[in-house]
This record gives sequence, structure tokens and C-alpha cells, in this order.
Amino acid sequence: MRWMQRALGLARQSIGLASPNPHVGCVLVKNGAVVGEGFHVYDRRDHAEIVALKAAGDAARGATAYVTLEPCSHTGRTGPCADALIAAGVARVVVATGDPNPQVNGQGMARIRAAGITVETDVCMDASRALNMGFARSIVSGVPFVTLKAGVSLDGRIAPAPSARPAGPPAAVMLTGEESRAEVQRMRHASDAILTGIHTVLADDPLLTDRSGLARRRPLLRVVLDSALRIPLDSKLVRTAVNDVLVFCTTPNPERRKALEVMGIEVEVLAGNGARVDLHEMLRALDRRGILSLLLECGSQLNGAFLREALVDRVTLFYAPVLLGEKAVPLIAEGEEVCWETRSTSSRHYGPDVCITTELRDPWRA
Amino acid sequence: MRWMQRALGLARQSIGLASPNPHVGCVLVKNGAVVGEGFHVYDRRDHAEIVALKAAGDAARGATAYVTLEPCSHTGRTGPCADALIAAGVARVVVATGDPNPQVNGQGMARIRAAGITVETDVCMDASRALNMGFARSIVSGVPFVTLKAGVSLDGRIAPAPSARPAGPPAAVMLTGEESRAEVQRMRHASDAILTGIHTVLADDPLLTDRSGLARRRPLLRVVLDSALRIPLDSKLVRTAVNDVLVFCTTPNPERRKALEVMGIEVEVLAGNGARVDLHEMLRALDRRGILSLLLECGSQLNGAFLREALVDRVTLFYAPVLLGEKAVPLIAEGEEVCWETRSTSSRHYGPDVCITTELRDPWRA
Repeated sequence: MRWMQRALGLARQSIGLASPNPHVGCVLVKNGAVVGEGFHVYDRRDHAEIVALKAAGDAARGATAYVTLEPCSHTGRTGPCADALIAAGVARVVVATGDPNPQVNGQGMARIRAAGITVETDVCMDASRALNMGFARSIVSGVPFVTLKAGVSLDGRIAPAPSARPAGPPAAVMLTGEESRAEVQRMRHASDAILTGIHTVLADDPLLTDRSGLARRRPLLRVVLDSALRIPLDSKLVRTAVNDVLVFCTTPNPERRKALEVMGIEVEVLAGNGARVDLHEMLRALDRRGILSLLLECGSQLNGAFLREALVDRVTLFYAPVLLGEKAVPLIAEGEEVCWETRSTSSRHYGPDVCITTELRDPWRA
Repeated sequence: MRWMQRALGLARQSIGLASPNPHVGCVLVKNGAVVGEGFHVYDRRDHAEIVALKAAGDAARGATAYVTLEPCSHTGRTGPCADALIAAGVARVVVATGDPNPQVNGQGMARIRAAGITVETDVCMDASRALNMGFARSIVSGVPFVTLKAGVSLDGRIAPAPSARPAGPPAAVMLTGEESRAEVQRMRHASDAILTGIHTVLADDPLLTDRSGLARRRPLLRVVLDSALRIPLDSKLVRTAVNDVLVFCTTPNPERRKALEVMGIEVEVLAGNGARVDLHEMLRALDRRGILSLLLECGSQLNGAFLREALVDRVTLFYAPVLLGEKAVPLIAEGEEVCWETRSTSSRHYGPDVCITTELRDPWRA
């Protein structure tokens, strides 16, 4: 447990740096001491096992390897880690979880066992799986792991009634406190992409950048669903675009598209479900771009649409201690009984706010 | 701290047994050992200090008294506890909090100090005050401490859309799990009265009894706001009434009233704010009956009315991990921006649900 916890800590250091590969850590232990350890960073190619084996050198012989994900048995950008562990002469391999791909799951461990090495598995499995929800969702279902995030009043409202909005340029009304907003930045850092709808752009003019200050390999991809390409050229999103803004539309307006592309915005035309972007198709398009995790920061309409189509994996709501009443903007527009079945719930305080996270699905199985 | 915690634990044993008096515990300590302790129970008359002094006998001389509320200095149903402590020869008195009545606060402590005895105060003050929110609210403001309680979906809905209700006789749709419902029973046990509106009676036919199994001095007073006396004679409330159901109305219908009184229901006519019961007047009427704490288990309309008139002291919401959408019944009907200012928030898990409690006001000061 203790060494696997350490390997998990290493894996967590790869958040923002491993995608579209999984977050994996590895610790090599001999005679109660670490002889090598590491985690995978996409740009450095080496898988966590290889990083640890290189650090250990000859000391790896006879060691126990603690790995947070089953060692691979195939040649991709690197050779199979299972073979590397065997060649290094490790005595035992402890694995947190098998591969999420049912067609690969078990093969790495079988290869190591076939070499006469003891393999234990399912050690700290839940914690390792929690680190790789996006990787699993993509492998198993071909779409990113989708988190619906919102700051809400205690009565589930995301904003005061439109009539109660202050006059002036578009801007979001903040319900939650600075501690919650800092946590949202951390959530953005852990996401490959963030998505909002054109209504939110027009009403709030959000920036949607990762301002966590933490390192990331790829910029947070800022995605806007904007069927008719109405996004204003002077919006913050357009003005700050540096190959990190993607607009999905259904009705390509060549002139409008050109104007956006000149500003550094990428426009992709998708089949429309009526006038609206087909959300399944949109998620598959993001998956093709190597997006494993998507954070929704949307209004009521899109929240409702994603939930109704059962495309949301996790709901994270920051409850601010305010009550806004019936005329305020609801979390979810339209639809009846959008979700009765959930898996688990956790909560945490951020300053005056309480954050409740609810898992709607297990991406490792669904 | 340690001995005051023990005194607070004793005070908690009087929940259900002390009202309309406060919850108070007292511990007498000499040479590091308890020589007497007790708490106040209304029916036994003796205040906590007297219970502890009687238990200690001569051993009280030279002891330190830890009391969760300032000893009284006046003669009511009993003589002044300040005098009893002085007469028993205690060496020191430690008090958690002064009396909530600003005209009495400090007098008991002054009397003890005047006898040459050291008095310390404000030890575990918040915990003691939390135990006596109802007592303080009644003393300071002449109305009961009001807790708005509801089971809600994550998006703040108290029930599915009326169109989604199953057919059949009136019954509540349960969102929350059994652990939450057990906690609600505990909340009912800690309340002097519970209140709902005629709409909830007609829709859900609730029982509204204290089924905690814990001892209580007076039955939980079940209160219904029913301006036009529409409560059905075959409702569970009427059928189970044993001098514990009170109906407030504004339009006295003598025949209807008679029929209810025959069933053991008390009917009180109040001034109506339009057709509705005037909520301020209603709360003052409950206060006159010695009701210190009132639990609201109402629908959207009454929740909104109590909040808009700033009569709610605490909001306790049990969030079930479900999402019900825009057409479901909101927590609060009508009104805009019903509450932006709150004091503090806490949370706790009950099975799959998360309970968030928000304090809207300090009844010790308001």
C-alpha cells in the first residue's frame, strides 16, 4: 500500500503532462528502500517503468516494481514495458489496475508471469482508476470523460434572474468565493479541453483559460458550440486565441468562418441535430484530436442537453451559501427527471462554499 | 475545555426535555475529579447547577463549577443558582456564555464575583450557544428559531414535476435515503414544533410525527397553515391527532372548525395577510405557547414566503444524488434573490446524500 501510494503520488505529478497517454507512476523498491522511480510525461516518451528502471540501473535486479497501471505488452512509441521489467530482472511486480482496454487488459501481466515473475494486482485500484478517468473513457467509449461543473446557489441556480443582472457589458455574476474559483482553475488544469455555448459567450464573455499557474504540455483547448458562428470578434475568447480556440458550427458561413480563422480560431463544421451541434459527434471529434477530458462550463440549455443525452460522467457543483429563488437561472433547462441513477458522491468545503461531486458512470466499465 | 465539553455533553442529554427552558449542563470538579454533575430537565425543576450541587453535597466546597450558561440571579420556578453556588462554597465558576437576555446578561456572574469567587466566561461559547438557538431567539426576538428543512435534488428541486408523479393516493416522492430520513427524525426530536402548509397536506398526506424513538417532554406540535380550513378529516394528521395538531386559519368556518375540534385538532384564527396567514403573527402565537424551535417541512410557496419575510434562521438541505431538471418543483417559489447574506455553512454525509446547513442569522444577536 505504502509504495503504491508513492507511485500514485508520482503519477499525479504528470497531470497536465501525460495526456493523451495515461497518468502512471512507478517505484522500484529493494530491501525497503527506493532504488528508482518515475512517472510518464508524454513529451519525454519513456513510460513510468522505463523512467524508474533507468534511474535504478543495475539496482533494479531483484527489486519489486510498483506500477499504477498494468505494464504494456505492445510496441507503440516505445517498446513493451513488460519486456523491460523482465530484462531488468525485477523479482516481483505489483500493479494497481489492469489496462482499461478489455482487449489488452491482462496481457502485460501475463507476459511478466510467463517469465516466472510474481505479479499482484488490484492494489489501490480505485485511486489509480480515478487518475485515469479520461484515458479509460476514451479507450472504452471513444469519447472524452465529461465533467459538468457549475457554481450554484443552494437552490440550484447558476445565476440571478436576467432582470436582476446589473447593466453594463457582458460579465458573469460570481456566486462562489475565491477558494472555489481557485479549485476551478485546478480542474481546468487537469482537463484537456473546456466547453461552453454561444449563449454563455454572449452573456458572460468568459476567458476560459487555465490560470492555475501549473505546467501543462498542451494549452487548454477552449471549445465553443456556436451553430451559426455568432461569436463576436471582440469577445475575450476570440481576442486571446492562440491556436487554442475551436468553434463547432452546423451552418458554415464562409465569410464569418474566414474572419474567425484570420483571428486564429479553428472552425469545424459538424452535422446538426436540427440547428444544434450533434453532441455525440462533437465528442467523437474531440476524441480524434486526443482530448481525453472535457470540462463543461455552460448554461442551462447545454447542461440539460448533455445530461439528457447521458454524455456526462461527473457533476461537480460548487454550492455558494445564497438562495436565488424561482426566477433565477436553473442549472438544467428543459427535460424531466434527467438523472435518477448515480454512482457515488463526495463533498469538500472551499471557503464558504461546499462542493459536491457526483459520479454518474464508471468510465472503466461503461 | 475538557470539563466544559463534559458539561456540554450533559446539556445535550436534555434535548427534548428542557424546552421552554434552555439546555444547560454543569460539572463540579475538585482535585481533577468530578464531584457532582447534572443537567436541567424542565419537569424536575432544578437547574443544572442545583442538580450538580445536590449530587456533590459537601464535596462542592472548594470545587470549580463548569456551567454551559450563566447561572441565574433571579427567582423564578427556583431560587437563584448564583446564590446556591456561593452558598455551597465553590472556589471558581467557569461559564460558557452569558444569558441571551441583554437585560440579565452578566448579572449572575457579577453576583458570584461580588462574593469573591473567580468567574471565567466565554469558554466553548459557540458550542453552548449552538445548543440554545431556540431559547436565544425566543428571548431576544419573541419568535421561535426557524429551520427550513428539505430533501432536494442536486439542482435544488424538492419533487419531480407534478406530471411525473405516480398516480394513486397522495404520498411524498422520497428523494433522499434512509440515513437522511433518520437524521430528519433527530431534527424533529430537537424541535418543539413542525410546520407545513395545506398544499403539502393535500399532495403528500404527511404524518409529521417525531419517530426518533428518543424521549421528549411535550409531543412535537404539528402545525398546519390552512387559511380556509381545507384539511381533510381523513388526512393522516387529523386521524392521528392527540392534542398535538394545531391548525392556523384566517377565515373561521364554524362548522369546519367544530368538525376538526371533535377530532382533537386545535384551531386558531389569525389575522390574514390577504387570504394567507400572517407569518410574523403566527410565529408570535407559537412563541406564546412556549415553542422555542420550529421545523419547516413545506412546499415551494411557504419556503419562499418564510425566506422573503426573513423569518428563517437556518436552512438544512439534504442533497440526494439525482438531477430533476427545470420542470420539477423548485425549493423556493416566487421572489428574486431571496437571500444573499449568510453566516456560515457546514456539511455532512448521510449515506448517499450530502446535507448542507447554512446559518442565516445569529439568534443570540439579531
